[in-house]
Amino acid sequence: MTVIKVLNEGYVRLVDHMGSDLTVVNSARVSYAKQSLELDERDKKLIKFLAREGHTSPFRHAIVQFEVYAPLMVARQWWKYVVGSAHYEGTGDSLDAWNESSRRYITEDPVFYIPQAGEWRSKPENSKQGSGERLAWELGEKHTRELMDFIESGIAKYEAALSDGICAEQARLFLPAYGMYVRWYWTASVQSVAHFLAQRLEHDAQQEIQEYAKAILELIRPIYPVSLEQLVPDLKKEG
Amino acid sequence: MTVIKVLNEGYVRLVDHMGSDLTVVNSARVSYAKQSLELDERDKKLIKFLAREGHTSPFRHAIVQFEVYAPLMVARQWWKYVVGSAHYEGTGDSLDAWNESSRRYITEDPVFYIPQAGEWRSKPENSKQGSGERLAWELGEKHTRELMDFIESGIAKYEAALSDGICAEQARLFLPAYGMYVRWYWTASVQSVAHFLAQRLEHDAQQEIQEYAKAILELIRPIYPVSLEQLVPDLKKEG
Amino acid sequence: MTVIKVLNEGYVRLVDHMGSDLTVVNSARVSYAKQSLELDERDKKLIKFLAREGHTSPFRHAIVQFEVYAPLMVARQWWKYVVGSAHYEGTGDSLDAWNESSRRYITEDPVFYIPQAGEWRSKPENSKQGSGERLAWELGEKHTRELMDFIESGIAKYEAALSDGICAEQARLFLPAYGMYVRWYWTASVQSVAHFLAQRLEHDAQQEIQEYAKAILELIRPIYPVSLEQLVPDLKKEG
Amino acid sequence: MTVIKVLNEGYVRLVDHMGSDLTVVNSARVSYAKQSLELDERDKKLIKFLAREGHTSPFRHAIVQFEVYAPLMVARQWWKYVVGSAHYEGTGDSLDAWNESSRRYITEDPVFYIPQAGEWRSKPENSKQGSGERLAWELGEKHTRELMDFIESGIAKYEAALSDGICAEQARLFLPAYGMYVRWYWTASVQSVAHFLAQRLEHDAQQEIQEYAKAILELIRPIYPVSLEQLVPDLKKEG
Repeated sequence: MTVIKVLNEGYVRLVDHMGSDLTVVNSARVSYAKQSLELDERDKKLIKFLAREGHTSPFRHAIVQFEVYAPLMVARQWWKYVVGSAHYEGTGDSLDAWNESSRRYITEDPVFYIPQAGEWRSKPENSKQGSGERLAWELGEKHTRELMDFIESGIAKYEAALSDGICAEQARLFLPAYGMYVRWYWTASVQSVAHFLAQRLEHDAQQEIQEYAKAILELIRPIYPVSLEQLVPDLKKEG
Repeated sequence: MTVIKVLNEGYVRLVDHMGSDLTVVNSARVSYAKQSLELDERDKKLIKFLAREGHTSPFRHAIVQFEVYAPLMVARQWWKYVVGSAHYEGTGDSLDAWNESSRRYITEDPVFYIPQAGEWRSKPENSKQGSGERLAWELGEKHTRELMDFIESGIAKYEAALSDGICAEQARLFLPAYGMYVRWYWTASVQSVAHFLAQRLEHDAQQEIQEYAKAILELIRPIYPVSLEQLVPDLKKEG
Repeated sequence: MTVIKVLNEGYVRLVDHMGSDLTVVNSARVSYAKQSLELDERDKKLIKFLAREGHTSPFRHAIVQFEVYAPLMVARQWWKYVVGSAHYEGTGDSLDAWNESSRRYITEDPVFYIPQAGEWRSKPENSKQGSGERLAWELGEKHTRELMDFIESGIAKYEAALSDGICAEQARLFLPAYGMYVRWYWTASVQSVAHFLAQRLEHDAQQEIQEYAKAILELIRPIYPVSLEQLVPDLKKEG
Repeated sequence: MTVIKVLNEGYVRLVDHMGSDLTVVNSARVSYAKQSLELDERDKKLIKFLAREGHTSPFRHAIVQFEVYAPLMVARQWWKYVVGSAHYEGTGDSLDAWNESSRRYITEDPVFYIPQAGEWRSKPENSKQGSGERLAWELGEKHTRELMDFIESGIAKYEAALSDGICAEQARLFLPAYGMYVRWYWTASVQSVAHFLAQRLEHDAQQEIQEYAKAILELIRPIYPVSLEQLVPDLKKEG
C-alpha cells in the first residue's frame, strides 16, 4: 500500500524511500568501520541509545519522499513546521525539499475540503487552541450547507473574474482558500519526519493535520519500525 | 524612516539590523586578520569580487529583521522562497527565522486586501504567470464591489460559525483567505534578502509582492548600499 | 569587555550582536501585535514557557557574531556541531554563518597550542571519551618538551618544503595540524549558541572546547540573561 | 561498481541512492499532476530549463549517500563546502547529513596520505591558491622520505603519550593530522552534490579533492545523467 486517503478528497502517497533502520545503525557506527547487514539486538540498543541521548544525526541519512494533497490550511501548518517557525513548533531543521502546485497558474479545477454534518468541532473548554466535542448534527448540517453555498458562490465569482480577463493571480482572491486542496512533494529525513509526527500526532494539533500525520506514520512505520518507535513519543509509550 | 506602507492596509517595518558593508569585508578578510574601520575603494572592489565570483558567505554575517503585514497570498510566496521550494524559486537557504500570527486563535479582526477599481490586472499575453495591462475601470469597479460583498458575507458566516460554538480552526474555512492580512517577523542575512529581492523585483513576480520587495529594498539600501548594488541584478544594471 | 583569552594563544571576541531578551518576547508575541519595551515578569514567564515547551523559534531572531582563534581540533568539534553531524551532537540547525582562514594560502606564521607541564590529562576511568585526572607534573613536562620539539621539527620541514618550491596546499602536510591555531567568524542565533553551550559546557566535552564555551557564555550572558538561563541546562540548575 | 579508490589509501563508496532524472521531472511537474514513467525529450528540455533558470529545488528530491575515506585536509575543504562558509565557496545549503569518525576515541590505527616522489606539486605562478607544475622527481623523493620519517616519529610520540596514560583527545596533538585519513558518511541531494562538483572539479581546487570529486561524479553520473550534465559546468561544456 502506498496511498492512503485522508479527509473528503485528500491523500498521502509514498513516492520513494532510501534506507532502513540499518542505515541509522551504519551511519552511527562509521567510527568503527563496521557494517550491519541485519538488525540484531545490539543494533536496536544503539538506536534506542541514539534517540534517548538526542544524537539524532544518524537518522538524517534515511530519507522518504511523499506526495501530499491537502487543504491549504493543513499545508500552511506543515510549512510552518518545515520553516521551523511558529513559536509552538520550534525546529530549525531544513533537511526538507518541498515542491508545490500554485494557483498563480490556471491548472486544475479548485477542489475544497468541506466538513460533513457530523465533523464540525466545538471550541475547546480550557485552551486557546485545538478543538473540543463534536457539534450537534443539526447545527453541523447547517454550517456544511452554508460552506457549500459559500464555496459555490466563490467559484462562480472566480470564474466570472477570469472570463472578464482578470489575471489568475488576482482572480484567486475570490477563492475561500483555507479549505482549497493543494498538492506538493515533500522529501525529508526520518529525523525530520519523526519530529513532524511528534508534534502533529499531539491531541492539540489541528484534527485535520492529525489525520495526515497518521497516514504518514502508517506508510513508513513498516520501513523504519525501530527508529520511529524510539523517536515518536506516542509510539514509545505503546512500546 | 523605519515603516513603509504597502497595498491598502499592509506595511513593512525594519525592526533591527546588525552590521554594514564593512561586516562583509571583514568577514571575508578573516584570512588576513585585517579589519577595515571605514569602507574604502579596495573594500568596494572586494565586495564586487565576492558577488561576481559567487562567494556569498561573507554576506551571511550581516543580518536584518523585519515585521511584515501582508495578504496571505503574498506571505505564501514569501514562505516558498524561504523553504526554497517552488520550482521557479529554487534556493535551499535556510538562514531565516520566521514567526507568524495564526488564525487558529481568535485574536484580531480579519482585515482584507481588496484591489481598487483601477488596480485589477488582465492576464498576460504570452505567459502562463504574471499579469498584463490594467483592466478597464468600470469592469474593475464591478469586481471590487463583488469582492467586498463576498468578503462581507464570508465574515458574517465566520462569525455565525464562531457564535454557534464552532472552533476557530474550522470556522476559518469561511474566510476568503488569500486576501487576508497576516503578520510575521522575518530575520535573514543580507545574502538571503538580496536573493529574495533578485527574484521578487522581477517583472513577472506577482505585482503585490513586488510592492513589498520595493519596501524592503528602500528600508535597507542605506545600510548596505554596496552589497545590495552588487547582489541584486536590477540595481547592478542601474549602477 | 569584548575579548576573552583562551588557552595559551587563543581568544574569543564578540564582534557584534542584534537584539536582547526583548527580541525573543516580541518575536513570540507577533500573534498579538503587542510589543514590550522593557522586560517585565510576564515577559520572563513567556521566555520560561517557550524554553520549557521547546518552542525555540523566537530565540532565532536574536543574533550574535564572534571571532574565534582556536586550535584546529577545537575548530573541528565546533564545525561538527554546526554541520549537525557527529552522532553525539545531533542538531540539523544551519542558521550559522562561518568564515575561516585557510592554510592553502601562506598568510600568517603557524601558531600552536602546547599544553603546559601541568595541563596534560589522563584518560578517563569508565568512559570511551573525555579525560580524567591531571597527569603527574614530571610526566607532563616530558610530553610538553616532546611536543615542542616535534612542532619545531614540523615547522622546519614545512619551511624547507616551501623553499624547495612545493605549493602551500601540500607543504602543510608537515604541520602537526590538530594543535595549530585557526581563526574564524561565527554568526549564529541565540538558539544555536545556547545549543552549542548546552553540549560544550558538559563535563565530557573536550576540556579545551569547554574553555571556549565558557568564554562565549561570559561574553553574551549580560546581553541575553533570561534566555540563556532558560536554554542552557547548567545555568538553569544554578538559577 | 560502487567503490572507487582515491589517492594512496582512500576511497569513495556509493552506499545508496534515491530516484533518477525522472524524480526531478516529476517533482517539478507537481503543478500539473502528471507523472513521467520514462524520460522523453520533453522531460530533458524541462531539466535543461530548470537548470538554466536556477530553479533548482526539484533537484533536491533526488538523494545520494556516500562513504568517504580521505585525508583530513580534504575532509575540511569538503566540510567548508557543507557549512557553506569559506568565502570562495559560498553556499548556504544544508540539505546534507554528515557522520564522521573521531580521533577522540582510540579506534583504528592512524593511516596517512603521503605523496609519492612524482606527486609533489610546485606553487602556482600567478595565483595565491592552487598548484602548478610537478616538482622534480629527486626533490620529490627527498620530501616523501622526510614526510614518512616525520609521520613515523609522530606516531611513536603519540603512542608513547597514550602508554604514559595521556587521554586520546590530547595525545592526538602529536599526529600530523592534515594527511591523516578520516572516514565519513555523506547524504546529500543531487542539487547539493552538483554544486560540490561544480566547485571541486575546478582546476584551482586542491588537486587531492579534485580526485575525490571525479570519483563522486563517476559513481553517480549513470544514475542522473541529464541532471548532472545540466548542473555541472564542466560537463555542460562537453555536452
